[in-house]
Order: sequence, then C-alpha cells, then structure tokens
Amino acid sequence: MTATNVTWHHGEVSREAREALLGHRAACLWLTGLSGSGKSTLARRVERQLVEREVQAYVLDGDNVRHGLNADLGFSPEAREENIRRVGEVARLLVDSGAIVLAAFISPYVADRARVRERFEAGTFVEVHVATPIEECERRDPKGLYRRARAGDIPDFTGIDAPYEAPASPEIRVDTTGTELDDCAAQIVAWLVEAGFVGARP
Amino acid sequence: MTATNVTWHHGEVSREAREALLGHRAACLWLTGLSGSGKSTLARRVERQLVEREVQAYVLDGDNVRHGLNADLGFSPEAREENIRRVGEVARLLVDSGAIVLAAFISPYVADRARVRERFEAGTFVEVHVATPIEECERRDPKGLYRRARAGDIPDFTGIDAPYEAPASPEIRVDTTGTELDDCAAQIVAWLVEAGFVGARP
Repeated sequence: MTATNVTWHHGEVSREAREALLGHRAACLWLTGLSGSGKSTLARRVERQLVEREVQAYVLDGDNVRHGLNADLGFSPEAREENIRRVGEVARLLVDSGAIVLAAFISPYVADRARVRERFEAGTFVEVHVATPIEECERRDPKGLYRRARAGDIPDFTGIDAPYEAPASPEIRVDTTGTELDDCAAQIVAWLVEAGFVGARP
Repeated sequence: MTATNVTWHHGEVSREAREALLGHRAACLWLTGLSGSGKSTLARRVERQLVEREVQAYVLDGDNVRHGLNADLGFSPEAREENIRRVGEVARLLVDSGAIVLAAFISPYVADRARVRERFEAGTFVEVHVATPIEECERRDPKGLYRRARAGDIPDFTGIDAPYEAPASPEIRVDTTGTELDDCAAQIVAWLVEAGFVGARP
C-alpha cells in the first residue's frame, strides 16, 4: 500500500493516514486484573500474535514504565494514581501514532480506569478484565507477593487488604485458569477482528 | 513482507522483528533550538515526508505533551527538567515500538540533552540543532513571546535572559532562514537515508 493517497490534518499526518499506512485501526486495550492474574504475560502474547499479523502492537507494563517514565513514583495512593494517569497519556500518544497498545496494570479502581477511558476517542479504549480468581492468582504467586502480603510485609496489597474493583461491563473478559495462553490471546485477537480493528487473515 | 521469519526476544517481540515488519530502523531525532526557530514545523514536515515513504514516524512536541502527559508540570527549572526527562522516556518507548520519533523541544541545556541521550542505545539518538539565529526567531515571533519577554513579562526567556546552550557537535544542523521548509525537511530525511535508518527511494 502506498501512502500517496492519504489525507492530511492541519498540515500534519492524520489518524486516517496512519491507519491506511499500517493497514489496521489504532486502539488502547487496557488489561486490568489482580497481581498474578496473567495480565502482562497475556498482553505480550497478544502483542506477538498481532505482530505476526503485521500489526503495529506494543505493550506498556510495569517492566518498561516503572524503571523509566515512572521511576520517580512510589507506591502511595497518589503515586499509583499518577502512575495510571501517565500510562494512559503515553497510551494515547501511541494510539495517535497508529499503534494497538496493550496496557497491563492492576489498576484496581473504577474511577482511575474511567478517567483514562475519558481521554480516548469513543470506541478506541477497550477494557479487558483478566478475571483470574484470586485463589488461582495466590496459588501461582509468581513473585511471592501474596505470601509476603499474607505475612504482613506488604500493606495495602490489592485483593488482600486493599480492594480490587472489578469492571462491571468490560469489552472483553478473560479467565486464564486452565486455558492455554495462546488460546486466551487468540480470544482477544478474535475480538479485535470482529470489531473491525484488525483484518481477518486472508 | 511477512512477519513469520522474525526472531523473538525473551518470548516477546524484538527490536529486529519490529524493524523487519516496518521496513526501517527506529531512532529518536531530538530537535533543539530557540523559540521560533521552526523546530515543531520542521518536525511535522519531516514526519509527513517520512510517512509518505511509508515510515512509522511520530512527532512529540509541546502540542501533544504539555496538555496531556506533562499537564501537571509548570515552567520552573525543576519542572522544565522533568518535562525533558519524561519526553525522553516516552521517546524511548516509541523507539522501542519501532518508530522514528521527532522530539521538538527548546531543551536549552547541554546536560539535560546528554541525560536523554544516555538513555538510548548508541546510534539511536540523533541530535538536530535547529540553528536559526535569534534575530530571525525574534523577527518571526510567531507567538509574540519575544515581544513579551523584551517587555519584561516573561522572565527567564531562553535567548533573552536565560541561556541557550547550542550543541557543539550535533549529528545534524539546520538553519531554516531563507530555505524552503520542504528543503530543510529533505536534508534531514537525506541524512536518515545516508545513515541507513530509512531505505532510499526505489
């Protein structure tokens, strides 16, 4: 596809021009769920499946945000809110660049997630509830955080002594218990195809 | 080009896989220069010329950063430093996603620019000095800022009563005085082709 038939917006590159160039629509998929629910692992597998389809997909998670952009933020309630706000703003810039962004953060509060959603054009923010039950998350405990929280070493741990406010009506809900990672990821990719963000395989 | 022959890095999508998919190398072009030097206008024209070549290019400037990600920051010395730090980190994420980023900020201090450069892999940070002389910037004065600064209404204005530390050896230097915008932009695109970031036109 050539980019010669694109339209320009205020002398700049329009969203439509970028989407024409990349061959898909841009969106922010916001994965919310408990620690250990599999958000990041799932986001990275979806990213891989999308790139295999030649989609410009990109993951934002603690790994690439907490040590860089948000390295100045701690874990107080205010810092957590600012963490989510900044991630939302970076996701907006990436969506503006044409990407399908996968943001994977516990983001336990309805209000914080709603605030991020409001910053996006209608239809471009897709909430994905990674609804793995807490019993399964605690059984996995990949970073030993539940054990430390139960021992009282981590105060205000989401799901133990701090609330997790599950989304009432997310666009997508996935439970990673007893389902292969590739199949969970494929559910999300199928949703993107169904909703017209990404083309069906030829 | 198909993405089936890509390599994977720690189960994720590698930089090389992204570059193979997009058909060009990723980089951060950092445009520094006085207010009114033409940084943003030039960045947006380069972005347009690159997208016309099917390159995933994206501008970061005050327009899309100051009202979103950095809306909480004022103009104190500390806030300006944090502004540049965050922009550098967002540019890193965009480069990681495979894009050619054009960051256009006055960024008057050598130390702040060096700090951003250090965060990038060697060779992926390209400093562009938009070296339009202050007399020309003040003559243009597109936002009336020089007039207000001369009247004493804007303290610490770069070039008037705050220093601008010009880069000693930027990768690229452009003076927009008396040269067509498209020609200035083409100089930068030609540099990217010469350096192997972007393919030559077929």
